[in-house]
Amino acid sequence: MQFTLETTDPKSRARAGRLTTGHGTIETPIFMPVGTAGTVKAVHQRELRQDIGAQIILGNTYHLYLRPGLDTLYKAGGLHQFGGWDGPILTDSGGYQVFSLSDIRKITEEGVKFRSHIDGSKIDFTPEGVMDIQRIIGADIIMAFDECPPYPSDYEYARKSMELTHRWLKRCIERLDSTEPHYGYEQQLFPIVQGSTYSDLRQQSAEFIASQNRAGNAIGGLSVGEPAEEMYRITELVCGILPADKPRYLMGVGTPANILECIALGVDMFDCVMPTRNARNGMLFTTQGIINIRNEKWKQDFSPIDPGLSNYASSFYTKAYLRHLIHSKEMLGAQIASVHNLSFYLWLVGQAREQIKAGTFSAWKERIIPTLMQRL
Amino acid sequence: MQFTLETTDPKSRARAGRLTTGHGTIETPIFMPVGTAGTVKAVHQRELRQDIGAQIILGNTYHLYLRPGLDTLYKAGGLHQFGGWDGPILTDSGGYQVFSLSDIRKITEEGVKFRSHIDGSKIDFTPEGVMDIQRIIGADIIMAFDECPPYPSDYEYARKSMELTHRWLKRCIERLDSTEPHYGYEQQLFPIVQGSTYSDLRQQSAEFIASQNRAGNAIGGLSVGEPAEEMYRITELVCGILPADKPRYLMGVGTPANILECIALGVDMFDCVMPTRNARNGMLFTTQGIINIRNEKWKQDFSPIDPGLSNYASSFYTKAYLRHLIHSKEMLGAQIASVHNLSFYLWLVGQAREQIKAGTFSAWKERIIPTLMQRL
Repeated sequence: MQFTLETTDPKSRARAGRLTTGHGTIETPIFMPVGTAGTVKAVHQRELRQDIGAQIILGNTYHLYLRPGLDTLYKAGGLHQFGGWDGPILTDSGGYQVFSLSDIRKITEEGVKFRSHIDGSKIDFTPEGVMDIQRIIGADIIMAFDECPPYPSDYEYARKSMELTHRWLKRCIERLDSTEPHYGYEQQLFPIVQGSTYSDLRQQSAEFIASQNRAGNAIGGLSVGEPAEEMYRITELVCGILPADKPRYLMGVGTPANILECIALGVDMFDCVMPTRNARNGMLFTTQGIINIRNEKWKQDFSPIDPGLSNYASSFYTKAYLRHLIHSKEMLGAQIASVHNLSFYLWLVGQAREQIKAGTFSAWKERIIPTLMQRL
Repeated sequence: MQFTLETTDPKSRARAGRLTTGHGTIETPIFMPVGTAGTVKAVHQRELRQDIGAQIILGNTYHLYLRPGLDTLYKAGGLHQFGGWDGPILTDSGGYQVFSLSDIRKITEEGVKFRSHIDGSKIDFTPEGVMDIQRIIGADIIMAFDECPPYPSDYEYARKSMELTHRWLKRCIERLDSTEPHYGYEQQLFPIVQGSTYSDLRQQSAEFIASQNRAGNAIGGLSVGEPAEEMYRITELVCGILPADKPRYLMGVGTPANILECIALGVDMFDCVMPTRNARNGMLFTTQGIINIRNEKWKQDFSPIDPGLSNYASSFYTKAYLRHLIHSKEMLGAQIASVHNLSFYLWLVGQAREQIKAGTFSAWKERIIPTLMQRL
């Protein structure tokens, strides 16, 4: 896995780069659509590639472990084969589920015991086990097993949690470095910086993570309810410590404004359920601003969903038709809105990349954020 | 609207023909995907055309009247424009809802009063009103407003219901013939034969319908719970009376075997929710037989859903992946299965057409039905 830094913005820390994987090259900054259970909800694989322009997608270790399960994934030849996506895949480690499923899990030094959210059965996740699972899933980028603490966390909890995440990281690295990929292409581990919103913990964690010298690094524990200013402050601090010659991945972020601001701070990779989850509720991100398509004002607006985007869903279907579908709870509504919102997110990072390469990123960002975030 | 009979099978009453509409030509026999509320559930318009090979789709007067409503449809320029389907459209009149919503409607000589299934508001459907609505929807083929009686119906109920349907037909014709289309292309009325399972009523109704000399004729009131043998008996009787030089449309039918048997009896057009509804439950019609994709046996079957079909959904995705999606209640499961099942139905009628033109339909039908209807 090779990361080439192509351009750095003169007026911010934004960068354009290229990350080469066993399943093709990713142009950064990039947004990664979330495919939790081996499917980006409501989107065909062909649409991901041809309409949305996705370059890498996410899977989730916890969810894939439960369904379809490791035996099936292994026999299929890994998740790429199983789901029919031949581009790069990154898998979340299940660390986020330690946070989001906090009422059905128990954390110990050894790892995390879950109760399955499907059938209540017992699940034991250890750093070693999670590496083995991600080997079988076959992701190109494997995330370390971490604890994502809630916001707010008191200092002592945040410190202990961070230290546990660091100890787990050592175990992840040891396991991964002593095992081989199953399917013939390389799999690289990204460790995760934690430390909640405490500057000294974040600094300590970023230094520790940087010292591990892996192919890329991630910032976790943000976008869990803290104010945007806190997110930016921590991201800036951490990006200042993580090495410049490795890609930086900010987990679970965010709105279009969050993404542009964090690109300006030096982040290269993003993922978020927002474009797909909000799509299913009729909230659209467009090149003109934010639309709640359920509103009466779109009822007889027969213009395309977003004339600023050229993909099929955004340019072929009208706002009035999409409103009708979402109102009528027709599946096609979620399908159209999902393809549209993801196309917008990929357009957004593509534009950011072009602006970085042209040396105009900072001015463009200031100009475009008010447009993108206004409610239409 | 012109119907050209191309070939008649020497050993049955099956026919191949071409029906020309203001939105293109339909090759018969044909299956029409059901798009009740202006969307074929879970299927993009592009997929209907390019993957499924749909030539004409259905809309439903009752549902479209409620949502998006006539004002929106009229301002959009009709349903073709509103939904982005530029091929022919046929609209059900709401007569089927007189049957399916029997607990929230009241029939009088004047028409039918419904309570909206959405908000309980009052809806008055008369033959004249239903013609006006279908003018606004802009269907190429407009169905007469009828009463679809339940099965079984006693003789007196069936007779009175049929006579009411005939009186309503006269009113439909009078209204349609005294109004103009709104959007510049012709709209043709298909009257509907009723009479339940009573041979003398069906004969009387078919003769009355035939005498109206419209562009095409329909057989209603079947596929409402009667045995298949009854459906075939009535279809044969009615097809023997309806003119050979007009297309014959059997409403709401059916399984692959039902369709082939009724093609053999002289039917040219079919619609049914079965391929899409069953798809959402994981029941697949394939060129090899019927698959319940939820079954354990498909869990690790990494072969394409149907190697006998060339469309994207059937050939790209595997049985194991589709099973995973349906099990996990992921929308993409319904999407894939719907495109697949509709592709199969269009393949089926396309094959039937080729066999009719080759003079080999009857032997082919006998050979293929056991394969198509076996449970795999």
